[in-house]
This record gives sequence, structure tokens and C-alpha cells, in this order.
Amino acid sequence: MALFISAEGGEGAGKTELVRALAEQAERCGAEVVRTFEPGATPLGAALREQLLQNDEPIAPWTETFLFLADRAHHVDQVIRPALARGAVVICDRYLDSTFAYQGYGRELDLDLLRAMNRQAGGGLLPNLTLFLDVPAGVALARARPERRDRIGLETVDFHSRVLEGYKRIALAEPERVKTLDAMSPLPEVVAAAWAHIAPRLQRLGYRMDEAGR
Amino acid sequence: MALFISAEGGEGAGKTELVRALAEQAERCGAEVVRTFEPGATPLGAALREQLLQNDEPIAPWTETFLFLADRAHHVDQVIRPALARGAVVICDRYLDSTFAYQGYGRELDLDLLRAMNRQAGGGLLPNLTLFLDVPAGVALARARPERRDRIGLETVDFHSRVLEGYKRIALAEPERVKTLDAMSPLPEVVAAAWAHIAPRLQRLGYRMDEAGR
Repeated sequence: MALFISAEGGEGAGKTELVRALAEQAERCGAEVVRTFEPGATPLGAALREQLLQNDEPIAPWTETFLFLADRAHHVDQVIRPALARGAVVICDRYLDSTFAYQGYGRELDLDLLRAMNRQAGGGLLPNLTLFLDVPAGVALARARPERRDRIGLETVDFHSRVLEGYKRIALAEPERVKTLDAMSPLPEVVAAAWAHIAPRLQRLGYRMDEAGR
Repeated sequence: MALFISAEGGEGAGKTELVRALAEQAERCGAEVVRTFEPGATPLGAALREQLLQNDEPIAPWTETFLFLADRAHHVDQVIRPALARGAVVICDRYLDSTFAYQGYGRELDLDLLRAMNRQAGGGLLPNLTLFLDVPAGVALARARPERRDRIGLETVDFHSRVLEGYKRIALAEPERVKTLDAMSPLPEVVAAAWAHIAPRLQRLGYRMDEAGR
């Protein structure tokens, strides 16, 4: 019965709103839905998130990477795996593709080593479905709420362009898992496009859709 | 002029006392000495140390490893490299061999991956000299002060035996860098044995020893 969905994309792409809408829709189908996020969804993770986003000391790329991976390893152990084990639908705002896009492509760190580390951090757990919200870097940054512009949000447009390029390559390499959504569309259209990928999976798991196929 | 020394060993082996005595002796030779430790010597590290040692949630082996590596990466960037760059003698209570001994041998994690990660965490920085304080596992645990018996100190005797076995293998594999000291001896003898490895290195760097060769 379990289903693991992640939402990915740059700053201000609208992941949070999408995840909220999809969670409500999946709940209406009768699923237990666990809506979660990275980094910071556990007490340990919240402490790491504070260090990652608000620390005044300069944090080097590998330090940042190890912190994100510690957060993920703990999140998978404490939240995601237990939820999947009891058959829940887990919808996670950012997961391992964020590490590849931000640290691998954005910070230009060794992708093979990041892959090896992620195999340990998540115990090899991949989402069944990843929704990539595609929006041009400049637009996404302008959309991001100013109070949310943290250390990573304050990076250069070049950095964010590399991040988006990274997401596009991941989507190209894993078309079965990663579905690209045009996040320039109005939210209801993005939600509908995302739901079109989720509904058949829920149906295969035995959940009933309503007359509108939702 | 720079010299990077690490002290390693199990719980209660007497690292702290040794490091303090060696730092004083090196200062008497006119060196700038930076005495430091892992984990927790930076503000970021202190936050991680608190999570590592005091968190009530179960922390999985890889989560623990990523936290230690984040601490090391930041410590090297913020403390060790700047000190070495200005010619200081850095004496560090635990460094990368702790990761191999505790997480590699103790927790039985993939040593090759730990090596690859450590090359990034320390930017490849190895100590010039590592002092391994050898003491039987049972003795070391009995010596450790009860108020210092944290999450890792509370592991089984089997775990700590594997850690010591790991240190011995490292010492065997890298005899030039790692010197084993019999930590069952009284402290002044351990200090003298350690100093015998340090003095010639300081002399080569141009520091003068006193008439007792110290």
C-alpha cells in the first residue's frame, strides 16, 4: 500500500503548496498520508537545519553536504521507513535529488561520491515517484519569499542555474521515476499534472478515485 | 614551522591529560601551540557534539558518521588549517583515525567509503604524527569517568574491543605516522615516550630543546 513521492525544484518553485494540495487529495482517497520535508523534520534534523541555514560561520561545501546527509539518514530511519512500513503514502518536500542538484551540480562536488554516500544515507531508498517543478532560475528566485532567503537562497544566479541544469539531467536520466512539471503554470494546473502521475499508482494500490478521477 | 599531531585511543586511555602535558612542553620550546579536539571545537561542532552524545533518539551508524565528518570538515577549515598556515603546532585530541576505529571497525561500516569521505572532510589533511594510546578495552572503560560515559561510552565491551583492534591495524599499516604508546604506564612515562617522537620533529623545525632534551 505504501507509496513514496518526493517533490524537487529550485527556490520558489512552489513545492510546498504542491505537496500540501497533493497530500489533501491523497487523503480524500482514503490513504494515510505523511507529509514531510528535508532538511529538519526530526529533532536532530531541526538542530542541523538551524546550523545549515542560519549559522554565521562560513560553511564549506563538504561540511554542508555531510550535514544534509546526516539529516537524511536520520529522517529515513525515524520518519520515512516507519511510515512506508505501515503502508502510508509519504510525500516529501526535497529528498536525495536535492543533494545531487545543489551539492553535485550547484557546488560541483564529486557526483560518484555523493551517490555512494546517498546509498548509505537513505539505505538505498529511492522514491517511487519524483515531481520536478521546473521554473527558470531568475523567476524562481524572484518568487521566493524574502524572509525565506537563507544562506543557500542567497547564492548567485549562476549557482541556481547549475542546480536547475542538474535537475534536468536527473530527469533525463531517470524518466520513469522523475516527472517534470511546468511550474510556470497556475497552481491548480500543476497539481492536476502531478495528480495524473499519482492517481494510477494509487489505483494500482487499491485506492478508489472519486467520479472526477481524483 | 607547522606540525600537526593527533592523539587517539579508546575511552579513558588518558588522551586529554597527555595532550595537555605535551602542549605545555611544546610551548616551553617556544612554539605557538593550538590544543584542540574532535568533536565539538567550533560553534557548529559544539551543536553537533551535543546531538551526537546527548540526543535521546536512536542515531544510526551512518547518521553518526555524517555528523562526525561534518564536524571534522568544519574543524579543519576553521581551526586546524589556519593554525598550521601560521606555523603553529596543532595537537588534536581525536582526528580521522577515530572515524576508522569507531565507525569503520567498531560499527563495521565500509572502510573504503569512510576513506573517500575523509579525503573530502579533511581536504586530505593527515597528521604528521599520531599517538595511539594503547590500553585494554576493559581497563579503559573502567577508567573513564562515569559522568563522561556518553552514548558511545555506553557501547558494549565487544564494540570497544573492535575499536582497539582497528587502532592496532591502523598503527601496523602506517608505522611512520602512527606511534603506539603503552597507556598502562604512569602518565609521566607516557608523556616521555610521546615526547621522544615529538622532540626530533620540533628540532628539525628549528625549535631548541632545554638541557634535558625537552
